[in-house]
Amino acid sequence: MVARTVDLRSDTVTKPTETMRAAMATAEVDDDVLGADPTAFRLESEVAKITGKEAGLFVSSGTMGNLISVLVHCDIRGSEVILGDNSHIHIYENGGISTIGGVHPRPVKNNEDGTMDIDSIEVAIRDPRGELVFPTTKLICLENSHANSGGRCLSAEYTDRVGELAKKHGLKLHIDGARIFNASVALGVPVQRLVQAADSVSVCLSKGLGAPVGSVIVGSKSFITKARRLRKTLGGGMRQVGFICAAAFVALKENVEKLDGDHKKAKELAEGLNQIKGLKVDIAAVETNIIYVDIVEGSKITAEKLYKNLEEHGVLVMPKGLSRMRIVLHHQISSSDVHYTLSCFQQAFSGMHQENGSYSISTSRDVSYS
Amino acid sequence: MVARTVDLRSDTVTKPTETMRAAMATAEVDDDVLGADPTAFRLESEVAKITGKEAGLFVSSGTMGNLISVLVHCDIRGSEVILGDNSHIHIYENGGISTIGGVHPRPVKNNEDGTMDIDSIEVAIRDPRGELVFPTTKLICLENSHANSGGRCLSAEYTDRVGELAKKHGLKLHIDGARIFNASVALGVPVQRLVQAADSVSVCLSKGLGAPVGSVIVGSKSFITKARRLRKTLGGGMRQVGFICAAAFVALKENVEKLDGDHKKAKELAEGLNQIKGLKVDIAAVETNIIYVDIVEGSKITAEKLYKNLEEHGVLVMPKGLSRMRIVLHHQISSSDVHYTLSCFQQAFSGMHQENGSYSISTSRDVSYS
Amino acid sequence: MVARTVDLRSDTVTKPTETMRAAMATAEVDDDVLGADPTAFRLESEVAKITGKEAGLFVSSGTMGNLISVLVHCDIRGSEVILGDNSHIHIYENGGISTIGGVHPRPVKNNEDGTMDIDSIEVAIRDPRGELVFPTTKLICLENSHANSGGRCLSAEYTDRVGELAKKHGLKLHIDGARIFNASVALGVPVQRLVQAADSVSVCLSKGLGAPVGSVIVGSKSFITKARRLRKTLGGGMRQVGFICAAAFVALKENVEKLDGDHKKAKELAEGLNQIKGLKVDIAAVETNIIYVDIVEGSKITAEKLYKNLEEHGVLVMPKGLSRMRIVLHHQISSSDVHYTLSCFQQAFSGMHQENGSYSISTSRDVSYS
Amino acid sequence: MVARTVDLRSDTVTKPTETMRAAMATAEVDDDVLGADPTAFRLESEVAKITGKEAGLFVSSGTMGNLISVLVHCDIRGSEVILGDNSHIHIYENGGISTIGGVHPRPVKNNEDGTMDIDSIEVAIRDPRGELVFPTTKLICLENSHANSGGRCLSAEYTDRVGELAKKHGLKLHIDGARIFNASVALGVPVQRLVQAADSVSVCLSKGLGAPVGSVIVGSKSFITKARRLRKTLGGGMRQVGFICAAAFVALKENVEKLDGDHKKAKELAEGLNQIKGLKVDIAAVETNIIYVDIVEGSKITAEKLYKNLEEHGVLVMPKGLSRMRIVLHHQISSSDVHYTLSCFQQAFSGMHQENGSYSISTSRDVSYS
Repeated sequence: MVARTVDLRSDTVTKPTETMRAAMATAEVDDDVLGADPTAFRLESEVAKITGKEAGLFVSSGTMGNLISVLVHCDIRGSEVILGDNSHIHIYENGGISTIGGVHPRPVKNNEDGTMDIDSIEVAIRDPRGELVFPTTKLICLENSHANSGGRCLSAEYTDRVGELAKKHGLKLHIDGARIFNASVALGVPVQRLVQAADSVSVCLSKGLGAPVGSVIVGSKSFITKARRLRKTLGGGMRQVGFICAAAFVALKENVEKLDGDHKKAKELAEGLNQIKGLKVDIAAVETNIIYVDIVEGSKITAEKLYKNLEEHGVLVMPKGLSRMRIVLHHQISSSDVHYTLSCFQQAFSGMHQENGSYSISTSRDVSYS
Repeated sequence: MVARTVDLRSDTVTKPTETMRAAMATAEVDDDVLGADPTAFRLESEVAKITGKEAGLFVSSGTMGNLISVLVHCDIRGSEVILGDNSHIHIYENGGISTIGGVHPRPVKNNEDGTMDIDSIEVAIRDPRGELVFPTTKLICLENSHANSGGRCLSAEYTDRVGELAKKHGLKLHIDGARIFNASVALGVPVQRLVQAADSVSVCLSKGLGAPVGSVIVGSKSFITKARRLRKTLGGGMRQVGFICAAAFVALKENVEKLDGDHKKAKELAEGLNQIKGLKVDIAAVETNIIYVDIVEGSKITAEKLYKNLEEHGVLVMPKGLSRMRIVLHHQISSSDVHYTLSCFQQAFSGMHQENGSYSISTSRDVSYS
Repeated sequence: MVARTVDLRSDTVTKPTETMRAAMATAEVDDDVLGADPTAFRLESEVAKITGKEAGLFVSSGTMGNLISVLVHCDIRGSEVILGDNSHIHIYENGGISTIGGVHPRPVKNNEDGTMDIDSIEVAIRDPRGELVFPTTKLICLENSHANSGGRCLSAEYTDRVGELAKKHGLKLHIDGARIFNASVALGVPVQRLVQAADSVSVCLSKGLGAPVGSVIVGSKSFITKARRLRKTLGGGMRQVGFICAAAFVALKENVEKLDGDHKKAKELAEGLNQIKGLKVDIAAVETNIIYVDIVEGSKITAEKLYKNLEEHGVLVMPKGLSRMRIVLHHQISSSDVHYTLSCFQQAFSGMHQENGSYSISTSRDVSYS
Repeated sequence: MVARTVDLRSDTVTKPTETMRAAMATAEVDDDVLGADPTAFRLESEVAKITGKEAGLFVSSGTMGNLISVLVHCDIRGSEVILGDNSHIHIYENGGISTIGGVHPRPVKNNEDGTMDIDSIEVAIRDPRGELVFPTTKLICLENSHANSGGRCLSAEYTDRVGELAKKHGLKLHIDGARIFNASVALGVPVQRLVQAADSVSVCLSKGLGAPVGSVIVGSKSFITKARRLRKTLGGGMRQVGFICAAAFVALKENVEKLDGDHKKAKELAEGLNQIKGLKVDIAAVETNIIYVDIVEGSKITAEKLYKNLEEHGVLVMPKGLSRMRIVLHHQISSSDVHYTLSCFQQAFSGMHQENGSYSISTSRDVSYS
């Protein structure tokens, strides 16, 4: 029996706070499909304001936000999108932009910091003169912070340069801002500045911000009009959606300020883990609330046994391949949880010197999500 | 200024009750994308039980429920679905099964009672011997009650016959049960019996039952497994979705018994309207909570002026074409509202004998939804 | 052993003439994908001229011609096309516009003469005000002559009215002109006049005109530019395609004048068949080269046995359902073939008075094509 | 005025020989859509035999061959294909597998020799346990010889290893064999051996083999049955297609033996060009009939001027980016043409010492095809 659970798999596992529950219980709602829900409207306006865009639209997930955004920009048959080969859209969203939207992805190599080289992006843009055999490049996607690169942040300057490239070639720029507030807090730069060059942004409220459900996509009014229609097509139009918008509004108001603490706890945990013989963390890469931990070759304990051992002590992490795990901090992980986690790791490594080093996990492939 | 509003446009406009709000405030929730939300699970199990199917899945709308169901049954490129030419899926869901799912619809004529002739369905099933030029028929869709036919109900016997036909040809049967509880109450037949022949059903909880958001689709376990994945692809996976499931559970427990009252009020209103000179209602067709009202030719008042006049008195109806309107009853329309509505109509017709009969609405085409 | 074969299944079975073979042997050709084949260009220009359109594009089949045309007009996700519920595109082209192109079809009832009521078309056009739940109507398709209605012809006046309706609503008009030359000859109206209102036409050269392969689609220059690109996407770009274009050019020059003879032979055969007790032909409906023959109820011979008997004498027809067959005339069916065919039918009916009337064909559904 | 043309842009520009024209003029043909053309059947059987597969299907282009093959293997919504990031399918086929087929591509880095690392492929295969957010890997594609890598060849052993990996994970293996005969001749290994591990192969006959039109795809009987149907959906079914099959049959019989000469001429030309100061060719990479030539930085002549100068002398090459060109040999380029080409290059470089080195071509992006 597990006495204590420290769930570090993702920041999506946060539980709604009492304030959120209270906001839901008293929310003023109406039929949002008929465009009448005041609480949805208030949330959408707020996120639009924060991001400096004309309008917003509540959607039920980051995946839906990205899917709708890509499809609206790529509304013509034969469209292509340039995106990171290690981006969430390319790896963890079921290939929906193709399998549902018929959009052709042209992945460009993600650097370790989550950027793509500007030159590589430009080379990937299709020359309109070759249109007989080329799809039409319509869109570039960035992700900030970049989850698969360990939550690293794209600077405003980098984003601006990609935006200029997009403009030069008549393309749109979409930012997957699943954790854009983490990037903003870590960089000390307002969200609005970070997404200044973007035509659309998908902002998630149910990750580190802890809302029970939902994202908001923002962009121009005409973008949002098209997005609203596509949301209906996907079945994402919800009637009295104001209830969940009320909770999300609380998340936005109360939890942004908690992100800095999450980042500090991540740093602390990362440093502690890195001191364990058999583990290795690139400390410099821990810019926000995500830690990638490698089990070094020749370690006394196999990944499989480590995860089992941790789980027995209530510590849940996300395996990412044969010998790597992902750990994500959020506002419901306390300092005490961090210390407990560290001690569980230490125990696992010290108490198991009898283990040999053979790895027996059946696959090195990635099964995690979010 | 309108003192009183009687919104008869749709049963989607119901406002959540205090019991629902209380249930939301105290709901036990967890990350449903990780399969851990107990309240979602409880709702899904309950609807599965009511419909007599193995498993259920919460989705954010009836449109998503139908889209996922059709796409799961038609998972292979080149699939065709037989459905009513006046069905909600064909007319009011953005053509999503084709524009998102690439499924080819083969509409069959809907009779006035919402059925399709069994013979017509059979003729529309593609002969596998002609596969070189034919898509592959995979699915038949019914809708019960049938909205565009005025909420009329399909009997269990009719549904069984379509189910037998489907089985004979190796096809699946999906029922759009947006208002299946209305049909059940009106026919006095349990929902489970009405959908016995179906492989999947989409059950809406946010129409007459008054839940703020959501539908549940039900079917075999393997159907639901595929549906869950496709829901994620569409972005319909929601994290702590239990909040809205909690309200939907209340809707299911408290509001089914109110539907009979809705039907009675519909009948009363229909009879009242039919006595107004200038209006015509097919009383026999009012089997549930929907009324279609025709403004007869040569009426003293144009449709446009009638709607404007009603709206000035706070009575909202849904125009359906040049001289027809739709009226929908639900549990938040009181007997007093019905009488008030009738009096507004009577006044509009009696007080406007100076009007000539020329119609000036710009289009006869249908702009309504749900 | 069959001494003589009279293949009346379709006019696609024509064999290329010696003139066509000679034209192929000496054709000047080049890489058409690079836009350099002079013979392809000559054919495309000729068909453009005949139809009064700006430009043409050779495609490998009528199906590809229709597919490309519909997809070019419906290039935006969420497009809908209005077309006949008995049209070739809807019934015999694999549902490709949806399953490949994601276009949503909105079938309108085809009358017996191949027309759709203008009012019914107008009602089916989606009101842009309802766009949240409606796909966007982009295109109307007609078919002239209309195969499934027995090759009946649409008049220039009818087509003009549909064209005006399309213009009024900002839609395009495509004509499936698989047998537009048959219509032109039967009506005594130039092709150019018949398609005057159309934005695009698919003209087949390998049906009654007897070319071995191919159709030409015509329209504005910008339409053809988009069509060329989509043809490449489908893999329909062919290198030295001039060879088959050379044969098609001969078809155009030599065989249009033979169509009138085909129509006369069709009339003669139809009248002869109609005089056989047990068969019934709507003579007035035989406007071009297609005959639909019904085996009347209570006939002495079953359809199955009739087809078998005819086949033993080398006469091939196309079954269309339980008790109906399709017969198509073309320039390689001689007057003698017509008389031979008639005698085979007569013999089948007179020599088989011992048969009872029970039908045993396993299905009434349609397996034929083209 | 150009006296002599040496078209080195592609091996698709070959002109059909007199033997091919004669074969076309006398070909026995019938309606191939009805499955009756004997010449198509003979060609399909021959290619099936050469490749060691059960059955074949004639298609109008390599693009159609690849499109159909990928779509048949990926027939279920949500499929993903692993393919080279520099492969013809990913770069030069309009993204058709996504924009037409809804298949999600997962590109893996192509090495300089056209291979992908086996480990990289395995990592890219989706773990079925993560199916909630992953598309389903269904197919791996190789390309042999690999055009964008300069026509380099994949060994039978490498292909076998990829085949084993595919089998291990329940995937299919498709080979884009646009120039599989070039690979076979260069490696001295029969085609059948090279594609032994493949479930399907697309074999082009209108590149180095010089047929006017067409490719043949091969695979199991059930694969070909599905492919035939999909070919019809795309509009690629052609009636009396035997004419072009007859020419393609000649290509197969007469021109395979000429490929070795093409490769020798390529080597000779490559060596000659490499000796010109200002040009650089990786001689070892010239394994078949394709040469990539780089204009070295600081060269006396800009790429733009070089191409213009060559064109004035009738020598056509294919620019690939800012300072690289592609040259392709084929059986209608004589030894004399090679020498003439070399002299034109030499002249261009020697006669233009007055030029400065500034590059002025407006883009570095790729506009070439095939």
